[in-house]
Amino acid sequence: MKIVIVGLGLIGGSYASGLSQKGHEVYGIDKDVETLEYAKKKGYIKISDETEAELLSTAELIILAIYPQAILEFLNKNKMYFTKHQIITDVCGVKSSFINKATLLSSPAVYLSHHPMAGKEKIGIAFADSSIFAGANFLITPLEHTPIEAIKTLDRIARDLNFGRITLISPKRHDEMIGFTSQLTHAIAVSLVNSDKDKETIHFIGDSYRDLTRIAMINENLWSELFLENKDALLAHIENFETELNILKKALNDNDKEQLNELFKNSTHIRKKMEKCAN
Amino acid sequence: MKIVIVGLGLIGGSYASGLSQKGHEVYGIDKDVETLEYAKKKGYIKISDETEAELLSTAELIILAIYPQAILEFLNKNKMYFTKHQIITDVCGVKSSFINKATLLSSPAVYLSHHPMAGKEKIGIAFADSSIFAGANFLITPLEHTPIEAIKTLDRIARDLNFGRITLISPKRHDEMIGFTSQLTHAIAVSLVNSDKDKETIHFIGDSYRDLTRIAMINENLWSELFLENKDALLAHIENFETELNILKKALNDNDKEQLNELFKNSTHIRKKMEKCAN
Repeated sequence: MKIVIVGLGLIGGSYASGLSQKGHEVYGIDKDVETLEYAKKKGYIKISDETEAELLSTAELIILAIYPQAILEFLNKNKMYFTKHQIITDVCGVKSSFINKATLLSSPAVYLSHHPMAGKEKIGIAFADSSIFAGANFLITPLEHTPIEAIKTLDRIARDLNFGRITLISPKRHDEMIGFTSQLTHAIAVSLVNSDKDKETIHFIGDSYRDLTRIAMINENLWSELFLENKDALLAHIENFETELNILKKALNDNDKEQLNELFKNSTHIRKKMEKCAN
Repeated sequence: MKIVIVGLGLIGGSYASGLSQKGHEVYGIDKDVETLEYAKKKGYIKISDETEAELLSTAELIILAIYPQAILEFLNKNKMYFTKHQIITDVCGVKSSFINKATLLSSPAVYLSHHPMAGKEKIGIAFADSSIFAGANFLITPLEHTPIEAIKTLDRIARDLNFGRITLISPKRHDEMIGFTSQLTHAIAVSLVNSDKDKETIHFIGDSYRDLTRIAMINENLWSELFLENKDALLAHIENFETELNILKKALNDNDKEQLNELFKNSTHIRKKMEKCAN
């Protein structure tokens, strides 16, 4: 398949690497000349005589691996190049805020969004590594009239990159779920680390603190966009979490050992089921 | 050194295994006959003709690897056996609540507490594995009059088990720090998992959710004791964490991208320093 990847960062670069290895004809577009040179040198993308306009108008699949707010700008700037049999997708962690506009701007091409649930606490193509996708969740967010062919194309991309479970989900439900499993976890890790006012903490940490706070190392520009574009869902999840934390605080204040035991048994039960399915 | 380990669970069993490998003469005491047989069969402890009373009165070092509330009970029941040149220690995750009473009951032996910052989300000797201590933090909590020889003995045990950094700290400061790095993290993970009311979450999790919630699988009897015995420090840390979470919530509510960026930059900065030192 002729694929153009727009934005060769950690995720775009990893896609380019993995899809090239699978024999796809992969081209790249990036504002940064050095990044393009690096991707060519590494064999992640092909060298081409075509202009960006030519690449965009002849690609079968265009993958936008850029920040949420850059997507509409890119589509608007290049909408004259899109054609009927093309599919355009993105890898963003939020969907509802831009997906309808993106669909309109992409026409007559089909816009079908997806979300690869994998990553690293690193930025840039130097850390590109397609093995991060192995076994990870891959979410496709079709709209009501999305043609089945577009879904099949993304399904093939997911398989070629060795993703694990592939799930179809509406953009709204996607954002609700991601607000919980991804954004709330980052909000918690950031707040936990920022609440540390002690200079000697490093002497007293075990694996639990390290594991829980790893994602507090965060790409601030990307994540502030993701948080704000999914603000309502995230705030609701934070409040549910606070409610649970208050139950635990009350049990502590009341010296209620039985209630603490119940809370711990419940969390163990819920989390164990995920361990089994996840591995 | 002649060592008696009381309580051959995950930690006691792992100590027995590691210290036997280093050539110490290790004996075990446990309520469960099968556990004792297993430990002997595996070579974690020696077979002995001595009674428990004889073992306790001739040991150079007694390691109590039992729950906090069982420690005083054990010391009280066996106080007639302790002698002047013995050291008694425990592996508990909290200290202040029992350490003065333990010191009195152990006399004329020296009571010196410590905390191995390592573990597994598993219970029992079947999961014993002394490699979990490699490179981990080892905290020793002396009192004002603790003799230097006792500290040297625990220091040797820590080295023999391949712990990393060995830190001396007062029991009170220990409990404050552990309330943050260990208990708060467990309280957060438990509350996060318990706030999940959705049956389909498993389809939408990535590594961040898995890493952050692993410790929500928790030994409820042990941890409810640990939480309640360090309740004041833990509640104070929960409140500091809630304050930080509220700052983040306010930034979201105000659409304050700049403030979010600041929070993320700050957490990244703090956490990165721990990454470097920790590995």
